[in-house]
Amino acid sequence: MVQNSEMDLNFQQTVSFTTRINKSPFWEGVIAGELHSLTVYNHTFLPAVFKSLEEDCKHLKSHVQLWDVACQRQVEITGQDSALLVQMMTPRPLDGLKIGRCMYVPAVDNKGRMINDPVLLKLAEDKFRFSIADSDLRLYALGLAAGKGLKVSISEPDVSPLAVQGPKSEKLMERVFGQGPKSLNFFDFDWFSFNNTKHIVARSGWSKQGGFEIYVQGSSNCMPMWKALINSGEDLNVRAGCPNYIERIEGGLLSFGGDITSENSPYEARLEAYFDADKANGCLGREALLRELDNGIKRQIRCVEIVGNPITVCDRIWSMSIDDQFSGTISAAIWSPDYEKNLAIAMVESDFWDENTKHDVMLSDGKRTAIVCSDFPNRQKNKGLK
Amino acid sequence: MVQNSEMDLNFQQTVSFTTRINKSPFWEGVIAGELHSLTVYNHTFLPAVFKSLEEDCKHLKSHVQLWDVACQRQVEITGQDSALLVQMMTPRPLDGLKIGRCMYVPAVDNKGRMINDPVLLKLAEDKFRFSIADSDLRLYALGLAAGKGLKVSISEPDVSPLAVQGPKSEKLMERVFGQGPKSLNFFDFDWFSFNNTKHIVARSGWSKQGGFEIYVQGSSNCMPMWKALINSGEDLNVRAGCPNYIERIEGGLLSFGGDITSENSPYEARLEAYFDADKANGCLGREALLRELDNGIKRQIRCVEIVGNPITVCDRIWSMSIDDQFSGTISAAIWSPDYEKNLAIAMVESDFWDENTKHDVMLSDGKRTAIVCSDFPNRQKNKGLK
Repeated sequence: MVQNSEMDLNFQQTVSFTTRINKSPFWEGVIAGELHSLTVYNHTFLPAVFKSLEEDCKHLKSHVQLWDVACQRQVEITGQDSALLVQMMTPRPLDGLKIGRCMYVPAVDNKGRMINDPVLLKLAEDKFRFSIADSDLRLYALGLAAGKGLKVSISEPDVSPLAVQGPKSEKLMERVFGQGPKSLNFFDFDWFSFNNTKHIVARSGWSKQGGFEIYVQGSSNCMPMWKALINSGEDLNVRAGCPNYIERIEGGLLSFGGDITSENSPYEARLEAYFDADKANGCLGREALLRELDNGIKRQIRCVEIVGNPITVCDRIWSMSIDDQFSGTISAAIWSPDYEKNLAIAMVESDFWDENTKHDVMLSDGKRTAIVCSDFPNRQKNKGLK
Repeated sequence: MVQNSEMDLNFQQTVSFTTRINKSPFWEGVIAGELHSLTVYNHTFLPAVFKSLEEDCKHLKSHVQLWDVACQRQVEITGQDSALLVQMMTPRPLDGLKIGRCMYVPAVDNKGRMINDPVLLKLAEDKFRFSIADSDLRLYALGLAAGKGLKVSISEPDVSPLAVQGPKSEKLMERVFGQGPKSLNFFDFDWFSFNNTKHIVARSGWSKQGGFEIYVQGSSNCMPMWKALINSGEDLNVRAGCPNYIERIEGGLLSFGGDITSENSPYEARLEAYFDADKANGCLGREALLRELDNGIKRQIRCVEIVGNPITVCDRIWSMSIDDQFSGTISAAIWSPDYEKNLAIAMVESDFWDENTKHDVMLSDGKRTAIVCSDFPNRQKNKGLK
């Protein structure tokens, strides 16, 4: 039975609700959490702000949040050629990947250009799942498997990721799942019971504040899971949240389709820690990537600081220049209250990417200076991606 | 230079503006047209309503509208194997397709399931463009071409479709392009000059009111083109518009991702007039489709009338039943002021798809009756798709 809440009606003033864009199985919880603004990700609504970017960020760093990330659709690949197909799609060597482990893998085409940057889960020797960023990776896998005549089955299971993020996430998880999740190492996963169903729980998530992702099995289990977590954590100050634009820029977490696109290679995305083309035998983009390395990388992601007044929105790619020569682009920028400056994600041409290089960038209120930083302030090792 | 208008700021209350979702090169025109609500299509904002669905529909049927459909991204396939690759992707035989013609083609995978329903333009014997619906068809083409080792180049050119739709569209086009476009037959295209650049103009568009699609070459030509059209048609009552939810349901124009999904075959989508699996040698889904035909089609699109009060929104798939047995789903529904009833698009199981069959459907305000109609009231031959 469909109930259109007042909140739903409020959004309908500006956002068209049709069945082409999915409302996730957590929608009721999202709306009850007083959603402020949303976006669309993999044909699914994704919450973007609850109270405000700044308040959400502060809360995420202090407490625990539930994130409806059902839009991270699951592409499941099974069958005798599944490992072969998965390796064709990424320059990260997969020989060492064990069952029960997640791996962040840049996915590339045969030219070595990025087509997604999913998390890969190995469920069995012949069973893998991509938890995908915002592009139809399933279509690439389908085309490639058909073209190669591989013995695989490619499907999208009824699984909806729910992220539990923030410093109190361990405590909250314990109350619903017991001691199990606590013992997971970073990017390990295991199966845990809830509502008489087993769900994958991984220690992972798109923030630097620690936490878990629950791959909720079956849409009908989603709201019971959401409610169990919300109801167990009042004293932990749990509330609905979402990937936070400030926190992810501070941490250098890149958004596929915004900061990195199908024009870019994983070298340009500065993901060297997460692949090794030389050792990735079977990856279709391997040779193109090795050639790129030989020729020299032409541009790369940098953190830049934009001097001046607080920036509140970056809704178009901004061009940077030095002495009127094109020097790069900015794809995301925001005022960071904790670092007390405007932090931005830039794709900088190689001649101009050294630390402290000053670029010009035109904003709506005039010309600003953008200075290349050594790194994103919160991009520590062994936190976040792995 | 980025200008955030008041209208932009108004939308930002509910819609997150980041660079992951593109603002089209017509955005300035869209915003000036007093956009009411929007959606996202192929990673790009798409206007959904200007004044109201009803007012927009009435205007579209009486006058002429400019539609920012830049979200219909172009996937260009060139090279010696391009015709081969394109035919692999569709069960519509392409041998008869001439240069300068458009063709509506269901695109399918090797299981005969739909992956998109683009319009295909043949620019040369070895140069094709898909003008795509809402899925990353480029990724399927990339995967398939890599898997087969085809000699093709696949790219997304800087081309932004602008639709001119409505009964006065011929008059408006004449004022900007002269007599040329008038002589185009339905689904023919040719190149016409504007701003010293040649642009493809086709007699096509996603309405039943007649009109053209201008494939504007180069983003920098987009706003000049928009302004030239808006400024030439004041007496024709031209204004910004968009694909209209009421008009498209009256006309039986299906939305990929909503009414038809990757679970469906083109038979189920009732697109028999637009493909012929038997004659489509080279289509990877051919055998699966012929098998489906042999085994009998299990469900199919129907127009249904939902009895009772006017329906204003259908934001989730509604399930239909007969005597508590599942009988189909409804993916779109709205009150049609011209036909004075609620029209809906349903995928109906074969046992229950005959005309006048009565189904139950639960809405938020209670149970309703949905009656299968003979066809969509405005799905005439030779208008709309071809």
